[in-house]
Amino acid sequence: MFQTFDSHASPDQGPPRLAALREALEAEGLAGFIVPRADVHQGEYVAARDERLQWLTGFTGSAGFCIVLPGVAGVFIDGRYRTQVKVQVDLSHYTPVPWPEVKPGDWIRDHLASGEVGFDPWLHTKDDIARLETALEGTGVTLRATRNFVDAIWPDQPAPPLGKAFVHPDSLAGETSADKRARLAEALRSKGERAAVITLPDSLCWLLNIRGADVPRNPVLQGVAVLHDDARVTLFVDPAKIDEAVRAHLGPQVTLRPPAAFVPGLRTLQGPVRVDRATAPLAVAQELQEAEVAVSWGDDPCRLPKARKTEAEVQGMREAHLRDGAAMVEFLCWLEAQPPGSLTEISVVRALEGFRRATNALHDLSFDTICGSGPNGAIMHYRVTQETNREIGRDELLLVDSGAQYLDGTTDITRTIAMGNPGAEARICYTRVLQGLIAISRVRWPKGLSGRDLDPLARFALWVEGQDFDHGTGHGVGAFLSVHEGPQRLSRISEVPLEPGMILSNEPGYYREGAFGIRLENLIVVQEAPNLGDNRAQLAFETLTFAPFDRRLILVDQLSPAERGWLNAYHAVVLAQIGPRLPDPVRVWLESACKAL
Amino acid sequence: MFQTFDSHASPDQGPPRLAALREALEAEGLAGFIVPRADVHQGEYVAARDERLQWLTGFTGSAGFCIVLPGVAGVFIDGRYRTQVKVQVDLSHYTPVPWPEVKPGDWIRDHLASGEVGFDPWLHTKDDIARLETALEGTGVTLRATRNFVDAIWPDQPAPPLGKAFVHPDSLAGETSADKRARLAEALRSKGERAAVITLPDSLCWLLNIRGADVPRNPVLQGVAVLHDDARVTLFVDPAKIDEAVRAHLGPQVTLRPPAAFVPGLRTLQGPVRVDRATAPLAVAQELQEAEVAVSWGDDPCRLPKARKTEAEVQGMREAHLRDGAAMVEFLCWLEAQPPGSLTEISVVRALEGFRRATNALHDLSFDTICGSGPNGAIMHYRVTQETNREIGRDELLLVDSGAQYLDGTTDITRTIAMGNPGAEARICYTRVLQGLIAISRVRWPKGLSGRDLDPLARFALWVEGQDFDHGTGHGVGAFLSVHEGPQRLSRISEVPLEPGMILSNEPGYYREGAFGIRLENLIVVQEAPNLGDNRAQLAFETLTFAPFDRRLILVDQLSPAERGWLNAYHAVVLAQIGPRLPDPVRVWLESACKAL
Repeated sequence: MFQTFDSHASPDQGPPRLAALREALEAEGLAGFIVPRADVHQGEYVAARDERLQWLTGFTGSAGFCIVLPGVAGVFIDGRYRTQVKVQVDLSHYTPVPWPEVKPGDWIRDHLASGEVGFDPWLHTKDDIARLETALEGTGVTLRATRNFVDAIWPDQPAPPLGKAFVHPDSLAGETSADKRARLAEALRSKGERAAVITLPDSLCWLLNIRGADVPRNPVLQGVAVLHDDARVTLFVDPAKIDEAVRAHLGPQVTLRPPAAFVPGLRTLQGPVRVDRATAPLAVAQELQEAEVAVSWGDDPCRLPKARKTEAEVQGMREAHLRDGAAMVEFLCWLEAQPPGSLTEISVVRALEGFRRATNALHDLSFDTICGSGPNGAIMHYRVTQETNREIGRDELLLVDSGAQYLDGTTDITRTIAMGNPGAEARICYTRVLQGLIAISRVRWPKGLSGRDLDPLARFALWVEGQDFDHGTGHGVGAFLSVHEGPQRLSRISEVPLEPGMILSNEPGYYREGAFGIRLENLIVVQEAPNLGDNRAQLAFETLTFAPFDRRLILVDQLSPAERGWLNAYHAVVLAQIGPRLPDPVRVWLESACKAL
Repeated sequence: MFQTFDSHASPDQGPPRLAALREALEAEGLAGFIVPRADVHQGEYVAARDERLQWLTGFTGSAGFCIVLPGVAGVFIDGRYRTQVKVQVDLSHYTPVPWPEVKPGDWIRDHLASGEVGFDPWLHTKDDIARLETALEGTGVTLRATRNFVDAIWPDQPAPPLGKAFVHPDSLAGETSADKRARLAEALRSKGERAAVITLPDSLCWLLNIRGADVPRNPVLQGVAVLHDDARVTLFVDPAKIDEAVRAHLGPQVTLRPPAAFVPGLRTLQGPVRVDRATAPLAVAQELQEAEVAVSWGDDPCRLPKARKTEAEVQGMREAHLRDGAAMVEFLCWLEAQPPGSLTEISVVRALEGFRRATNALHDLSFDTICGSGPNGAIMHYRVTQETNREIGRDELLLVDSGAQYLDGTTDITRTIAMGNPGAEARICYTRVLQGLIAISRVRWPKGLSGRDLDPLARFALWVEGQDFDHGTGHGVGAFLSVHEGPQRLSRISEVPLEPGMILSNEPGYYREGAFGIRLENLIVVQEAPNLGDNRAQLAFETLTFAPFDRRLILVDQLSPAERGWLNAYHAVVLAQIGPRLPDPVRVWLESACKAL
């Protein structure tokens, strides 16, 4: 099993650690300290040594931060984690703060009259700190870059990971690393930039056509790199992670240096050096500026090229999704056959991982499976533990959000399943969520629009009934990389134009706290849309995910003819694509699950 | 009749006028000159003396501009006017340029290597000129503020209008002018501004609770004003336009000055003075800056308060729409009774104005009726003239977009009607447009969204079939003011959050050049949405317009249950609200037009 069910959270250890941290701050003359979830790489998955937020507070979510002040310690969490945080932190010592509704700057103003608040500049971006500094203007509070005071009081902090890197074949990448480096170097030269600093591990892995094993669920190598304007790369990683095969693959244009050489290396660069103000640690720019190397603020040069998948990558994703779809269908068939009252959330997670392992191609999960029954389904990023595990009731909804890492692609699929008869209200809400998914699946749009422009289509059926969901409609997805990648997304805050090859999730939901949760998710890829006669240049989504939606939860008479047409066509494709990959009894089940509605 | 059918366009007079203009420019050492449609007030309706673009080129559209260079004269027109421009200008001397697809700066770069291009700073805003200057950076072309060279060669240019102002009663406005002035003056003081310049006539009329008669269709007084931070106003207008009653209404806090006193008045102000960079003439800021009066760039202080209608204004609009709806229903009933082949576009326009006149409350039309049959329906802002008038065919679509100015409100409604049997393709396209209108009518959304976020909902049914329309989904509408007002709109380019009281049009369309045009339009007002259980703060639209949609064009089996439900409920309200206002035979017709589908 990849997934484990122990509770990392230790709410009881929070208060003494908080006291120790405050003592250390006081000794330094600091009024406060900011503890982000982020590591140097600003990734969603962090190594054990970087789980500072969890170690301090108990909160295990994938995003958030804690601001420790003398009288109060605020744990800032977004809409996904409102419920989860309440059971993971000691509420007598930590105060959950709804974010981004409450801005950290405003919160600090309200709780601190004056003093210095420390932060570790390797864990915050320029944008983060600049935003906070603006918010604190005119107050008596200032920020100070300091060492990391959590590390200082964490005696048994784990060492950095040493996962082995491995080659990602050109046949799956669709473009050699040399070609990528040459293309990006040309872009640097055209802007007069001499180099770019790359701190995002998935950018690094994409650029070099390698993968790694430093963090769970995300097959990336943790390291930092400098891309020079002549297409050479200096890669700063622990040499223990690079074997002969990878060294040979990287070739003479890539120089390996140990991590400790990064800062001295930065200081000897010729400027201007491109640094991403939204993703690179502030310390990178500070080091460059101290050494009088000109900084050119710009995007990580890999982000957009990486987001526009090659045809080989899309083809790999298609194959991965057919394999994963067959495992999902086996799982759904198995689930329906289990006697009522015989399952727990953990047993469901184990079974699903078992079906994926049986493909003999499973490299890892792409994230810990979210399996929430009844009220747990309303906890958007619920991860079941031995403590929270519950028997699945006889008339409940079961929300299962899961995904896999295969060498040829990354999957992410959510289905919500009727366990028994969950009632009329669940069915009507399920149908509205499905209508949102269908709208995104069907839409074609004029070139130039961003995810922001499409996001409302996924919500319309809920909005008109006074309902909504407090997360984006979709995130970018990597190709055998992070299941969450930028910059593409379907969200109110996304202004990045959608372009062919971008892969996203399409996952509207509806959550009723204390009762049930519904989410439905397919992955989709942006494609040029065929001309239907009016010669309008449009884009559209191709759906990558194939698994049936639970027909027992669909109120067919609520659908429009076009929605019903899409659903029946989708189910027909599911049967045609997945059916031949299944053993007979499961195929028979799928035939009935995919019958026209 | 308010509307006339003569053709203002004189394409044949374009070439000699263009030659005269080029001669005048050459004498001044200028390589070019920009001729906007705009007047000092940046309004859509301009006085006869300000019809420079039409006088020079022949083009009569309500938006656009001409850039005259030595070898080429580009007439920049947006998607609404692509077809119209081709028949109104002499194409051997004028080149239509699709705008905003082609940016004027890029176009000038492509057609002029170097030299000075003149413009009249009273007819362009700061934003206009700044944008153009940025686009011309690094070229040999510069801009120069000059006198107006069209005026210089226009011997019989009409005099400025002298329409009489009149009082708009507080009972309809819902707030006294004194209260508005005090509220806005307080906002100025809170920003440390000493005064604001107001150049938009509808802002002026709203602020002073007056109306005017200087331009057709738009009951505004043309003038400019300064609002001081102590709530006094200096109003610069020709005294001939202000009678005793208006003078008494304005009260002692409003000082009247002749137009010629405006520039000297500006130069003696204490700064900072607020100027709107998007709507005020650039010359205003230039005069202030020359006199060393500090300019504070900001919004016209009236624009947002005016857009948020008072309950009295909304109530007036409701009453105006019931009155107008009854006239529309009489018209639609009459139209259906006419023998095939007996009507022309002009006869239809005359009949519709007749029904509106019969209300005995018609103050003016709110714009010249657009009545396009068959292929003329595809000309988005078609205004029928004796030259273009055509007999309405036996199996065509007829698009009628019209509106009225009543003392209590402004209306704007479009219906597309089947004359005979226009065929299956027209019906399917009509149904998709109707689905767009229904989506906007039904939507509820979280507070904070702008028109941009809702615009795609109106297009979805068209988009998925490869279709679209090249105009916004809706414009703001004034309360017995301009039928087009800002800043609220339903459009891809609108970032202004929608707020309760804002009135907009909801008018998706579909146009097939040379064949037919479809547009359906209701006015809507933003309201707080009732809580449906999830306690989400949402807004929604109340529909103001009541008239049936042509049931012969609706493919009911393409609608979702919710769309069909909305349509039937709407028709039931039309019958209930309008029926009692109709003579018996028309009511009988309406009963059948509103039967459930």
